[in-house]
Amino acid sequence: MLNGLLGWPGADVQPSASLDDTEAADLLAPFQSVRTRTEALCEPLAIDDYGIQPMDDASPPKWHLAHTTWFFETFLLLPYLRNYRPFHPQFEYLFNSYYDTVGEQYPRPKRGLMSRPTLNEVLAYRAHVNANMEKLLTSVVTEEVVSCTILGLHHEEQHQELILTDLKYNLGNNPLGPSYHDVQLPVCASRAALEFVDFSGGLVEIGCNNGTIGPQKDAFCFDHETPRHRTWLMPYALGNRLVTSGEYLEFVSDGGYTTPQLWLSDGWTTLQREGWQMPLYWHERDGEFFEYTLSGLRRLDEHAPLAHVSYYEADAFARWRGARLATEAEWEHAACPCEVAGNLMDSGWFHPVAGGTHAARPNGQPAQLFGDVWEWTATSFGPYPGFTPTAGTLGEYNGKFMNNQMVLRGGSCVTAPGHIRATYRNFFYPSDRWQFTGIRLARDA
Amino acid sequence: MLNGLLGWPGADVQPSASLDDTEAADLLAPFQSVRTRTEALCEPLAIDDYGIQPMDDASPPKWHLAHTTWFFETFLLLPYLRNYRPFHPQFEYLFNSYYDTVGEQYPRPKRGLMSRPTLNEVLAYRAHVNANMEKLLTSVVTEEVVSCTILGLHHEEQHQELILTDLKYNLGNNPLGPSYHDVQLPVCASRAALEFVDFSGGLVEIGCNNGTIGPQKDAFCFDHETPRHRTWLMPYALGNRLVTSGEYLEFVSDGGYTTPQLWLSDGWTTLQREGWQMPLYWHERDGEFFEYTLSGLRRLDEHAPLAHVSYYEADAFARWRGARLATEAEWEHAACPCEVAGNLMDSGWFHPVAGGTHAARPNGQPAQLFGDVWEWTATSFGPYPGFTPTAGTLGEYNGKFMNNQMVLRGGSCVTAPGHIRATYRNFFYPSDRWQFTGIRLARDA
Amino acid sequence: MLNGLLGWPGADVQPSASLDDTEAADLLAPFQSVRTRTEALCEPLAIDDYGIQPMDDASPPKWHLAHTTWFFETFLLLPYLRNYRPFHPQFEYLFNSYYDTVGEQYPRPKRGLMSRPTLNEVLAYRAHVNANMEKLLTSVVTEEVVSCTILGLHHEEQHQELILTDLKYNLGNNPLGPSYHDVQLPVCASRAALEFVDFSGGLVEIGCNNGTIGPQKDAFCFDHETPRHRTWLMPYALGNRLVTSGEYLEFVSDGGYTTPQLWLSDGWTTLQREGWQMPLYWHERDGEFFEYTLSGLRRLDEHAPLAHVSYYEADAFARWRGARLATEAEWEHAACPCEVAGNLMDSGWFHPVAGGTHAARPNGQPAQLFGDVWEWTATSFGPYPGFTPTAGTLGEYNGKFMNNQMVLRGGSCVTAPGHIRATYRNFFYPSDRWQFTGIRLARDA
Amino acid sequence: MLNGLLGWPGADVQPSASLDDTEAADLLAPFQSVRTRTEALCEPLAIDDYGIQPMDDASPPKWHLAHTTWFFETFLLLPYLRNYRPFHPQFEYLFNSYYDTVGEQYPRPKRGLMSRPTLNEVLAYRAHVNANMEKLLTSVVTEEVVSCTILGLHHEEQHQELILTDLKYNLGNNPLGPSYHDVQLPVCASRAALEFVDFSGGLVEIGCNNGTIGPQKDAFCFDHETPRHRTWLMPYALGNRLVTSGEYLEFVSDGGYTTPQLWLSDGWTTLQREGWQMPLYWHERDGEFFEYTLSGLRRLDEHAPLAHVSYYEADAFARWRGARLATEAEWEHAACPCEVAGNLMDSGWFHPVAGGTHAARPNGQPAQLFGDVWEWTATSFGPYPGFTPTAGTLGEYNGKFMNNQMVLRGGSCVTAPGHIRATYRNFFYPSDRWQFTGIRLARDA
Repeated sequence: MLNGLLGWPGADVQPSASLDDTEAADLLAPFQSVRTRTEALCEPLAIDDYGIQPMDDASPPKWHLAHTTWFFETFLLLPYLRNYRPFHPQFEYLFNSYYDTVGEQYPRPKRGLMSRPTLNEVLAYRAHVNANMEKLLTSVVTEEVVSCTILGLHHEEQHQELILTDLKYNLGNNPLGPSYHDVQLPVCASRAALEFVDFSGGLVEIGCNNGTIGPQKDAFCFDHETPRHRTWLMPYALGNRLVTSGEYLEFVSDGGYTTPQLWLSDGWTTLQREGWQMPLYWHERDGEFFEYTLSGLRRLDEHAPLAHVSYYEADAFARWRGARLATEAEWEHAACPCEVAGNLMDSGWFHPVAGGTHAARPNGQPAQLFGDVWEWTATSFGPYPGFTPTAGTLGEYNGKFMNNQMVLRGGSCVTAPGHIRATYRNFFYPSDRWQFTGIRLARDA
Repeated sequence: MLNGLLGWPGADVQPSASLDDTEAADLLAPFQSVRTRTEALCEPLAIDDYGIQPMDDASPPKWHLAHTTWFFETFLLLPYLRNYRPFHPQFEYLFNSYYDTVGEQYPRPKRGLMSRPTLNEVLAYRAHVNANMEKLLTSVVTEEVVSCTILGLHHEEQHQELILTDLKYNLGNNPLGPSYHDVQLPVCASRAALEFVDFSGGLVEIGCNNGTIGPQKDAFCFDHETPRHRTWLMPYALGNRLVTSGEYLEFVSDGGYTTPQLWLSDGWTTLQREGWQMPLYWHERDGEFFEYTLSGLRRLDEHAPLAHVSYYEADAFARWRGARLATEAEWEHAACPCEVAGNLMDSGWFHPVAGGTHAARPNGQPAQLFGDVWEWTATSFGPYPGFTPTAGTLGEYNGKFMNNQMVLRGGSCVTAPGHIRATYRNFFYPSDRWQFTGIRLARDA
Repeated sequence: MLNGLLGWPGADVQPSASLDDTEAADLLAPFQSVRTRTEALCEPLAIDDYGIQPMDDASPPKWHLAHTTWFFETFLLLPYLRNYRPFHPQFEYLFNSYYDTVGEQYPRPKRGLMSRPTLNEVLAYRAHVNANMEKLLTSVVTEEVVSCTILGLHHEEQHQELILTDLKYNLGNNPLGPSYHDVQLPVCASRAALEFVDFSGGLVEIGCNNGTIGPQKDAFCFDHETPRHRTWLMPYALGNRLVTSGEYLEFVSDGGYTTPQLWLSDGWTTLQREGWQMPLYWHERDGEFFEYTLSGLRRLDEHAPLAHVSYYEADAFARWRGARLATEAEWEHAACPCEVAGNLMDSGWFHPVAGGTHAARPNGQPAQLFGDVWEWTATSFGPYPGFTPTAGTLGEYNGKFMNNQMVLRGGSCVTAPGHIRATYRNFFYPSDRWQFTGIRLARDA
Repeated sequence: MLNGLLGWPGADVQPSASLDDTEAADLLAPFQSVRTRTEALCEPLAIDDYGIQPMDDASPPKWHLAHTTWFFETFLLLPYLRNYRPFHPQFEYLFNSYYDTVGEQYPRPKRGLMSRPTLNEVLAYRAHVNANMEKLLTSVVTEEVVSCTILGLHHEEQHQELILTDLKYNLGNNPLGPSYHDVQLPVCASRAALEFVDFSGGLVEIGCNNGTIGPQKDAFCFDHETPRHRTWLMPYALGNRLVTSGEYLEFVSDGGYTTPQLWLSDGWTTLQREGWQMPLYWHERDGEFFEYTLSGLRRLDEHAPLAHVSYYEADAFARWRGARLATEAEWEHAACPCEVAGNLMDSGWFHPVAGGTHAARPNGQPAQLFGDVWEWTATSFGPYPGFTPTAGTLGEYNGKFMNNQMVLRGGSCVTAPGHIRATYRNFFYPSDRWQFTGIRLARDA
């Protein structure tokens, strides 16, 4: 039941096999593991980095540390731990992200102005909530506590990814170009030409078996991955690997950013308003291309998977190549039989790479489906047929975002390893570029 | 072949049965009929009304008159009529709406600043192009001319609807509340309670048989209605009629506009930014509700179909009612066997009404599927599986808008009668309210 | 007493010598003369031009026609004409420009959306108010009626100038570049080098003798020209003529628009935000410069006085030339002994010209002080020592604008001839360019 | 010569009497004193506070620490200290505030995103520059070095004030309302009714004797305080003390913020756009008023001088009271004979107070002219007659801001004690409220 939490190296708890055997106390070790990992990710930071919000969508590390804690306090300690008193009366307001049911929220664009509480106070908040959560998990054994704690851990894993992407946006836009860590990135070897793998389609099933958030027969999934349902697919083909930076550079050099016919109308408007000329974090100096990575600025690795393009760029590139993006059903149908493995957070690179066993798949199957970069699909994020949001406040978790955003699949190099699965639906606005987002091509078979 | 153009009362040409028999000259009468109708719609206007652009999306009538003419000049006369010279060298630039392939465009938000060319010059432009089109249609008989002329007429019918909706936005926001015409609107009788009609779903087909724009075996359709394809539907149910203003008023009175939990996140943000408290054109004075119509301001008719709500409002209302909106496949599957009839432009009311034969359907089938108001669906506008845009410039007609917009179905009270069909896909942004847009509820069966 | 109104050719009333002799009926002819002139200025317009508001600050001609009429209705007919009933109950709201004391105002940026009332209705409004004003002026003889009517006529003369400048902004930004009239502009002869005329300064007096708006011993002036007061001037020098377009072109060619050191900080910010590269209405094609005039586009006349620069540009040019702008006291002290004559509206050119008797002054005195272009001064618009605004609503006429604007002096080629005088203080924001605004240099002596 | 630097308690260097005796080395102690004070002001901060930019105009403390250091590096060490090498090659770009002559600048609104350099690196930068400045001051004895070092110290004192006002804006907008220090503010005693003190005016002199920035016969002043010049004043009267919060509260209670007639046009627009209902930092709960101070939130002290109003509010209040604001010449003429003493930074309160010896003046002269709050004048900031900016880059210090801003006089409770003088001209935009700005009334005598 607990799989999905424990892919992190060194996790010392094995998931129990079925719901019946689950004890809340089984969550103690995963709880500690996930919470500790969040703080570990912040270790390389200077204290000055914790409070910065480099754009409205990229929250400060300190806020992530507090908000993930707020989740456990609000949804577990307050309702379920007898006599629990909030750490601070205003934290409910300050660290509520978007739950209208809980109450008013501190304005999102002003998270970077919150010099108080200080980092030390936030760390004390974490310690306080951790201690009380441990008390709860060893004393109260209800299905609500179990399922909500699991959700809270998945929630925190999502914010672990955001800590890294938001921080990259901060450091990557600093004129000094500081690096986050001094990991040496591999230089990728040349790739074989991209090929397409055919799928026959037909009436297939996608989505998660579970009907609700929480511990179910199989494994955890979010409410918006449910219900599992049938859908009809025409024959289609998927690229056998991700698009590389070098392939994308050809698009740039061919005038991709100055040819409106290649772009969706809203994409072209965005490109003009933002002055886009290449992917985020790319820099051109005297004809040479560089890219900012969490290991600092380096010459662009043309054989590594492309990252940090918007949906608009992914779509325009596909059109230029005479291809298209996959629908999410096509993607999931192709990915479902595959092992969930790839360049995820535990590789420690925090950047897409081309090498490794994940880059090749036997039998010519598509490779790199998991990890490296989130893959934009052609599908607008919406409810699956028969979808019902989780009851109560946590129904705001996903359902209210089912509009204007595009589905991404497969996880990235900063996704916690047990966090991703074939049915996982991520979603961002089509103009977003600060996530590790890339391209897999598709076409009609 | 020409059906789809000729629903307008008094159209005096019968469609020929097959492509082979088609002569371009058969298009003369429909051409004249459609072109004349555009001008007829403007007849009640004061000359002062022709140049007004009350918001970026609502173009001045003078611009519509010119742009629809530009279409024929650019796509037919210039390429196909020997020795044709443009009426004015700068009109290509001034009246190009969004065709990047054709060239630069005069900025859309400034259409209302174009005091020159004057209305008289634009009418002369129309006369000039009409005369030359008549020359073309009686001399050049090619499939391109035929198909592109037909497209141009459908294009002009779309702008006929826009003339009325854009004009309504202008007059309806004028503090004097002037009416467009003095048609007396019927007061609707009380409606029976809304009921749901079940559909069993399964593997169904939607979309248009035709593979391209133009004259095909069956009838005209736009490229984005193609190809006809299979899709899988779960059992579902559709409301047997449109939601009325009175039903929506209950939502307003119940705090619908002050309850964030009912709204999509982007919808709630929009509501707050715009200060929405009720549908567009509604006014509340001392507890009584009024609505602006093209016949002027009147007390809100609670039994008439609701109009002028955004997708966000439609979605929130459905959630409040414990229902949802239909997908476009659900809608089309239900509508396909039905006769295309309803309160369309030829009724002359230019406002949704409840009465008439269209409001009831035998056998409890859903009524009012066509006409009255465009029905928001839950489907984001995108390409059908296998979709290929029309080759060349006209590929910009629809394809580049397949992002961020929602599909609407069924036509409205200002849709030209031959213009609508079950496969017709209209699309607007989820925040748009100035079209005649309303709600049909759906739910899982 | 009535001088200031009657410079217009054909005015057939002589001002009476003193207040005591004044009869309201003496105002009949000037009233008719001014009102008629407003309509005469609109004669060359196409009906399409009347409703256009090309930017927030440039109102449609139709609005000017109505607002000047509203002034007489609001401040004269309603309070003083027994049994007068407003022409339309909502016009008070629609055509109030900024008088908070009168009540709410229709939003200024939306004046261009007012397709109703139609032009014909506005002309009927004018006729109605004219007829009633004539009744009033021949029946009610009070000082209030006299002084307020005189103010209303000066007010209308101000709007005559605005009709032309606002219209120029509309036509001059239309890609078709239409002209307002077909007057042939003179090509100016080469000018002698600019020289400076010295003034010794000392304790001087500026401002108007009158203590209030209205008929006084001497002549009409606005409240903000009062009271006449002493001020101390250091020795200074004024340019003996206006700066020409050719002189300004040298500044452009010398990198004036790319050298931040020449500019005020706010000016440089404005230049960058607006993308300024040259004066408004100038166009450069292949190294040649053209300018839009009310007679259409023509090659830049380098010997004509420069027009359509902002205060920021005037200030930067002066700095580049090693000079400065004059303070308003310096300007007025130099101008006061001069005859008020120059290229004003009655020349019919509606454009600055270099020729004519006004361009040279005997004894080396500064020429062109009146007419051609308004001259930016270095003085921020504020109250004179001892200033008291007119009591009541008309105190809003000038007083509330005494902040953030710069004083301009001397009138322009579209100023009504009797309207200007040495004490006249005009004021615009430092970034404004659509008025006929130019440069006279000054320096310390 | 060095007076103006050394009012800070504990400063251990006495100013030498004349320029001739000045040695650069005499500046060592004042240099150390001022530099140390800046860091002392930051001592109460949490490290989290150093990087916050709560609005575009309020820079982070870390930036102030670096920019004041940049000043010495750029204008002294680089030109005058042989073999000096910059601490970091990009700091010239990062910490240049607005000197276009020096080069491009890091965008001001993004100062709060600069997590690197870290605080520790900035402190190392300070130490490095301090050590080298000490080397310079003990080795190079030129007038340039002396005068520019003195300017740099006055510059740093200005930023000391900004550190406190910018920090107050950050903490004062934090929902937790943290205090900067735990100084106990005095509660002010009731004040006698405000009275007016008459001045006869006439031809007076204002401004500073010095012709340039730097060490002169008398004392330091900025270039924009020069030259001393004559001006003519009408008889006038000044309030004998500052307006209190209680007096302003009457204005609030009397509908001051809802009566457009009391406001300048631009002020009313600003009030509506910003939603102003009371001064900055005031809060109303259940009819009681509170104010945020650097000692935290407290009940409004009605007898203390009002602070944190914009020019628009000061002007509207004065109009409501039947008075006006003083011109800067009126203010300076009244202040010039007075001793420069008051509630300045060295009182340690960092808040205006009513008590103390400064609050009363013998002979009924105006009191509180120095310290407590900057006093808005009615004068727009511009050049004095004959003004010449300092040559070179430092000419950008003041001259380019002579537009759109209003002059303030007298210093505030956070002004360094030796920093203020009667001729001192401060300037802010009329909508600014985050400085300690208050009101002294004036009227015509």
